[in-house]
Amino acid sequence: MSKKIFVINGPNLNLLGEREPGIYGTLTLKEINEGLKRSFPDIEFTFFQSNHEGSLVDSIQQALQLNADGIILNAAAYTHTSIALRDAVASVKIPTIEVHLSNVYAREEFRHHSQIASVCRGVISGFGPKSYTLAVHAFLAELNG
Amino acid sequence: MSKKIFVINGPNLNLLGEREPGIYGTLTLKEINEGLKRSFPDIEFTFFQSNHEGSLVDSIQQALQLNADGIILNAAAYTHTSIALRDAVASVKIPTIEVHLSNVYAREEFRHHSQIASVCRGVISGFGPKSYTLAVHAFLAELNG
Amino acid sequence: MSKKIFVINGPNLNLLGEREPGIYGTLTLKEINEGLKRSFPDIEFTFFQSNHEGSLVDSIQQALQLNADGIILNAAAYTHTSIALRDAVASVKIPTIEVHLSNVYAREEFRHHSQIASVCRGVISGFGPKSYTLAVHAFLAELNG
Amino acid sequence: MSKKIFVINGPNLNLLGEREPGIYGTLTLKEINEGLKRSFPDIEFTFFQSNHEGSLVDSIQQALQLNADGIILNAAAYTHTSIALRDAVASVKIPTIEVHLSNVYAREEFRHHSQIASVCRGVISGFGPKSYTLAVHAFLAELNG
Amino acid sequence: MSKKIFVINGPNLNLLGEREPGIYGTLTLKEINEGLKRSFPDIEFTFFQSNHEGSLVDSIQQALQLNADGIILNAAAYTHTSIALRDAVASVKIPTIEVHLSNVYAREEFRHHSQIASVCRGVISGFGPKSYTLAVHAFLAELNG
Amino acid sequence: MSKKIFVINGPNLNLLGEREPGIYGTLTLKEINEGLKRSFPDIEFTFFQSNHEGSLVDSIQQALQLNADGIILNAAAYTHTSIALRDAVASVKIPTIEVHLSNVYAREEFRHHSQIASVCRGVISGFGPKSYTLAVHAFLAELNG
Amino acid sequence: MSKKIFVINGPNLNLLGEREPGIYGTLTLKEINEGLKRSFPDIEFTFFQSNHEGSLVDSIQQALQLNADGIILNAAAYTHTSIALRDAVASVKIPTIEVHLSNVYAREEFRHHSQIASVCRGVISGFGPKSYTLAVHAFLAELNG
Amino acid sequence: MSKKIFVINGPNLNLLGEREPGIYGTLTLKEINEGLKRSFPDIEFTFFQSNHEGSLVDSIQQALQLNADGIILNAAAYTHTSIALRDAVASVKIPTIEVHLSNVYAREEFRHHSQIASVCRGVISGFGPKSYTLAVHAFLAELNG
Amino acid sequence: MSKKIFVINGPNLNLLGEREPGIYGTLTLKEINEGLKRSFPDIEFTFFQSNHEGSLVDSIQQALQLNADGIILNAAAYTHTSIALRDAVASVKIPTIEVHLSNVYAREEFRHHSQIASVCRGVISGFGPKSYTLAVHAFLAELNG
Amino acid sequence: MSKKIFVINGPNLNLLGEREPGIYGTLTLKEINEGLKRSFPDIEFTFFQSNHEGSLVDSIQQALQLNADGIILNAAAYTHTSIALRDAVASVKIPTIEVHLSNVYAREEFRHHSQIASVCRGVISGFGPKSYTLAVHAFLAELNG
Amino acid sequence: MSKKIFVINGPNLNLLGEREPGIYGTLTLKEINEGLKRSFPDIEFTFFQSNHEGSLVDSIQQALQLNADGIILNAAAYTHTSIALRDAVASVKIPTIEVHLSNVYAREEFRHHSQIASVCRGVISGFGPKSYTLAVHAFLAELNG
Amino acid sequence: MSKKIFVINGPNLNLLGEREPGIYGTLTLKEINEGLKRSFPDIEFTFFQSNHEGSLVDSIQQALQLNADGIILNAAAYTHTSIALRDAVASVKIPTIEVHLSNVYAREEFRHHSQIASVCRGVISGFGPKSYTLAVHAFLAELNG
Repeated sequence: MSKKIFVINGPNLNLLGEREPGIYGTLTLKEINEGLKRSFPDIEFTFFQSNHEGSLVDSIQQALQLNADGIILNAAAYTHTSIALRDAVASVKIPTIEVHLSNVYAREEFRHHSQIASVCRGVISGFGPKSYTLAVHAFLAELNG
Repeated sequence: MSKKIFVINGPNLNLLGEREPGIYGTLTLKEINEGLKRSFPDIEFTFFQSNHEGSLVDSIQQALQLNADGIILNAAAYTHTSIALRDAVASVKIPTIEVHLSNVYAREEFRHHSQIASVCRGVISGFGPKSYTLAVHAFLAELNG
Repeated sequence: MSKKIFVINGPNLNLLGEREPGIYGTLTLKEINEGLKRSFPDIEFTFFQSNHEGSLVDSIQQALQLNADGIILNAAAYTHTSIALRDAVASVKIPTIEVHLSNVYAREEFRHHSQIASVCRGVISGFGPKSYTLAVHAFLAELNG
Repeated sequence: MSKKIFVINGPNLNLLGEREPGIYGTLTLKEINEGLKRSFPDIEFTFFQSNHEGSLVDSIQQALQLNADGIILNAAAYTHTSIALRDAVASVKIPTIEVHLSNVYAREEFRHHSQIASVCRGVISGFGPKSYTLAVHAFLAELNG
Repeated sequence: MSKKIFVINGPNLNLLGEREPGIYGTLTLKEINEGLKRSFPDIEFTFFQSNHEGSLVDSIQQALQLNADGIILNAAAYTHTSIALRDAVASVKIPTIEVHLSNVYAREEFRHHSQIASVCRGVISGFGPKSYTLAVHAFLAELNG
Repeated sequence: MSKKIFVINGPNLNLLGEREPGIYGTLTLKEINEGLKRSFPDIEFTFFQSNHEGSLVDSIQQALQLNADGIILNAAAYTHTSIALRDAVASVKIPTIEVHLSNVYAREEFRHHSQIASVCRGVISGFGPKSYTLAVHAFLAELNG
Repeated sequence: MSKKIFVINGPNLNLLGEREPGIYGTLTLKEINEGLKRSFPDIEFTFFQSNHEGSLVDSIQQALQLNADGIILNAAAYTHTSIALRDAVASVKIPTIEVHLSNVYAREEFRHHSQIASVCRGVISGFGPKSYTLAVHAFLAELNG
Repeated sequence: MSKKIFVINGPNLNLLGEREPGIYGTLTLKEINEGLKRSFPDIEFTFFQSNHEGSLVDSIQQALQLNADGIILNAAAYTHTSIALRDAVASVKIPTIEVHLSNVYAREEFRHHSQIASVCRGVISGFGPKSYTLAVHAFLAELNG
Repeated sequence: MSKKIFVINGPNLNLLGEREPGIYGTLTLKEINEGLKRSFPDIEFTFFQSNHEGSLVDSIQQALQLNADGIILNAAAYTHTSIALRDAVASVKIPTIEVHLSNVYAREEFRHHSQIASVCRGVISGFGPKSYTLAVHAFLAELNG
Repeated sequence: MSKKIFVINGPNLNLLGEREPGIYGTLTLKEINEGLKRSFPDIEFTFFQSNHEGSLVDSIQQALQLNADGIILNAAAYTHTSIALRDAVASVKIPTIEVHLSNVYAREEFRHHSQIASVCRGVISGFGPKSYTLAVHAFLAELNG
Repeated sequence: MSKKIFVINGPNLNLLGEREPGIYGTLTLKEINEGLKRSFPDIEFTFFQSNHEGSLVDSIQQALQLNADGIILNAAAYTHTSIALRDAVASVKIPTIEVHLSNVYAREEFRHHSQIASVCRGVISGFGPKSYTLAVHAFLAELNG
Repeated sequence: MSKKIFVINGPNLNLLGEREPGIYGTLTLKEINEGLKRSFPDIEFTFFQSNHEGSLVDSIQQALQLNADGIILNAAAYTHTSIALRDAVASVKIPTIEVHLSNVYAREEFRHHSQIASVCRGVISGFGPKSYTLAVHAFLAELNG
């Protein structure tokens, strides 16, 4: 049976490819998502993006209804401040990987701390759209292993 | 005339009774709310839950339209970070009691500070669903006294 | 068999009702204690007040001899600094509820932290003499539940 | 061609004129907005208010569709905590002025820091509804200059 | 009767227009002052600049002799460290507006805090020489309003 | 009618004149007290010393029974940590002067902060036994003034 | 031979008696100085006031030329920030007493720390103009003792 | 002549062997003391335990009357907060060894700092009742050495 | 031409598979390295492990001689403290990926900060031996991309 | 069978007895080691000293090959900064006692914190060469007990 | 053409050679300046000393009129607090070397931080009057180099 | 007799002239050392460089065997973290000068603090290879002086 992965993106990531390509690259979020589907045709992906912290919390809870095997979460700005997202991830107990396009540790100090990482399986940061691909690889290794 | 109390619950509390019973108990939020109505039949309760900080701010403002005599607020994760909720409580000037199911002071350090408590009437923390009941008792004593 | 509750009050609470009624109300500590006995005739109360941290530690240890079912502890100023009281509460393993007359979170910053809360069952803060009553209600719910 | 300015107001500012006039004055937000239109008839204003951080992020992104020449942003409570708003302002690259009705530096310490100011053109704080008018003047000077 | 405004500039602002135009613009302080007089012919301006904290304190006190209706204060580097200037402003009780040419919140961390802002009417930061003009507008609105 | 002053000394001050004369001088506490009585024969002094924080709290409360016109308090080590003493001083509302024999600001960092000073009339530190004399002078000036 | 005491007052103290009498009293600095001369006719006083940190440093150095037996220093706002004054006091090695009219420990947090106190003989804070008188008494006791 | 060692134990150590054996072991304080006497028959031991900070200060001072050659001090909770105990140890100038049953560095952060250690001869932490034995060995080596 | 990747492991990682399998898994470092070679037969790997910070610095410099296309660096404990390693990585300018077997953000606070991450291409943390595999994938994507 | 104890000494301890005898005594490290062997002839000692953090980590790992029953570790300067040593001690799970010749708590602030103590059996600090002897006594009590 | 170097000395340095020779040596400032002229006869020196922060700012600006090739700045106490001096140095863009007679890093903690160093060419601290000589050497190497 | 100076360089300085010339210049360490010998032919230089903290500690100790009259120490990255180097310098009591090629105060915050400076004679920072030359001049002045 095919594995289900829920890819959740946070605030301002809907602008990917349109704004600040120097930091975030030239691919749109849609293109990144399409690329994931092409690279992993056997995986059933669900995608969600929102600028609303509450909607991101909602979506993590919905991962239970989706029977998701894993969540890939790029919470963007909320990574650094949202206890609500942390509690949601801790609650649903679905393996979650925190990803970032840019290397957050090479940016402003306030981006170095994550409220969410400690309840995730792991963190992948700094590889552009490839960060998502690596997260899928990580899930596959675990799920197949 | 019966008293009106508005019970507002924050992020992830919709999962009560379903997830992490070890911390939060086995009652669902619906069952807790029903229990409150049964225990205090003379009080007119309104209930609201949301994972959205903004919706919680909206609901506190709506307490003015409801002519609520008191607000019981379990802001969950937003307790620790939301100045918006604090400002809402301070604005509407309806007596508000901050409650928590778990003893937040026995959990992670970042749960020890409340942005909201200083504009509330008081805080009740650590008694499971009974925390809500105690808050109603507190309002009754004040309203009847 | 009737339940035994030990009510322990810390420094300067012997002045209740006489000094600073604006903050602490007009009831004396004796009147608060009498009120508790009237409200809960089936409970066997023991009362203790001291300005001495050491005597408060002694009294918490004596709760073992009293076979107290619960301790209601308003450690007042020692709440914020006493590791000795914290260790005593942790040692005797009798369920303890921390109470405060005023909402400590609306006062000076140094009153926001409690050394004791993390080893208590819960905290009730801000309801004047009613804080004690609520604590008894909390014990009854637990003991009867 | 007339200039377009997008005026965005954050949480609890919908209560302006109704609650806490001592701090925020007696004009409603609608009256402030009408006043701006009257004072600057040649400017095309768009107004938005929300208690939702995510909706404020959405609205800043919509400024791109509106071809706004400038944004006047009173993020209220979110000023002090929202990295998401900061990232939105930095992304859209439309000149943005942070305004506050009250002098935030004369209020609680947690209101002294802005997460957003460093990516804005400038800050105007403390002049009541006049803060918005001054921000329009600032834009005019720049746009005409 | 014409209004009197005292414009006080702090250390290194005598170099305006000559040094670091990238940060501070190409106008000299004299030109900025002349511009203010031209823009507001009905206002009686007094101008003062000094690199000496003590002279700035002296000048704020002299505003009493001048019967100044308002002070526009760009304390430059002393903004961040001078309690003496703060005490002077608080003492004379003449409405004072803190201004900055550059957006201080977008510069080094030590420029984000103002010792003076909390005793001023408000703060205007980031609009170059226009910051002074906006401050005069703010006074006019208040004085005429 | 003669004025009553209550002189309260804290922990280890009973060793004065016997231990560490280099820091605290060669006079015993008894000699200091006798000296005060000789210097101010018209004042009715009461003296108390204890190593017990609780006893010092008790004694401050007893100042009410004594109808003391003023308290001279050298809380020694408890100066830096005792919220209980602070609350006692604030409660009894008898003018209190904090004194120290040594200049506490020239000693270890942890002696620079006083928990009590903010609720006292003033502080006199560094003049040896003369610190007490100066405190009496201060009271006389006020009481006679 | 008569003793020489140099009384040095810092920024804004020239406004004493004119501004903010609620904090600083109704006597002018001149009246305070005259009072000192009347109270201690045998002492040769020199008085100096300046709003300039550098002039205060100069004056402390001039105490050497004056052969002053003691310095009474109310550095006002510079108390909390001036290492230059600290170094001057440490250099001249003339006994110096730090005085304050108000109880600085009961005011804003930034007034609780003194850069200067650790190199002074002692500190007297909170007794209004009497603070200076007490300082003279302290010197007399020492000089005569 | 036999050596005299004064063994002083602080708050809650009277419960040793009765409460929390997992942390503190199964021996009572009496048994530990008896064990010391048996192990070192040539040493004249005095034992004292109190939950009162003041009584512990008193006892350290009494070591002078006892002509104690050394003090073994387990101040328990007061280790981390008591400047009064620190001052007492520094005053009496009798060699003092700070001991702990548990390894305080492996427990909560607030137990890592000792107010007393810097005025002691040394610290022995983590060896259960053996910590006292090692302290006696340390004294013997020094006294005999 | 085949790509060269230098895999550098820091202190205590030579014990992998032998000690603490609960945290670090059951594979030895040798087995992990062999696994990498099997998984990526076209890549020329060099492996190095040392407990010496200086040897790790040496090895990073040697990557220049090796003409390494990339460095995979698990600096273990030195991650959190070594500026020397940071400077080495910054100096050689060979793309470097920081990896960790465990999720360092879910461990002690002192493991949350990396001195090295800000000069690396990115960070992969929490996937056990798979962390190395993912790092190779990341390099391949970049080198081939 | 005789017990094996591995005594490991860190940086600069090879200079013992030669440099700074005021702090560290007049015995050389070799003499201290010889003394231990003489005092405990039944124990099989291994000794190691290095100025290299990595060599100390190596030596702790070698304790596994030595089948050491206990490690006595004086990590000197590395005590305060080395996470690598902490991880080594935690890994090998051989009981380890941290020792110091001087009382580190009476020295500079940066020597008060140990990175290693929390994974050790206990800490002995301040008894000169006797610190090692006491550590052996502690092991004997445990191993024999 | 001969090089011009402006030597600027801050507060209390006019007392050099007269006060605290233990820290600052026995040469007067005049002697140090004369020494510089003798040692470097080909350099055109200008010397300035003031206790006034503002005068030091003025003098740095005057370096522009002097066409100084370099500034040697010993800002003494103002080193640690003066943003005004920092801004002046940054503004004039004349190469500036920060010097100190004493090794500031071996003195009080508050002398370890310099507000000015980051905009200087370099720092020379601890060599007495030789610090100035070394600074001239540094300029010569650069100017000739 | 010629003077002996030991020049010790820390991690990554072996790459000088090869990597990051923008920060560190284009001279190799060998060339810098040769330059020193040419400039000071009468001085007997010994040179050492290592990336190993322990080797640097070893080399400082070897300065005793070398009978070095002075040490010039550029500890590079270890400057900011190594207590071991600090202790070594303090132990050998050979005059040591800390040097840096770049102005460390103009770089990242973590490079502003030196663990070693307080036990050195002085610090010279920011003059490129000339920093070493200046340090030799400083020694010569002292040794000849």
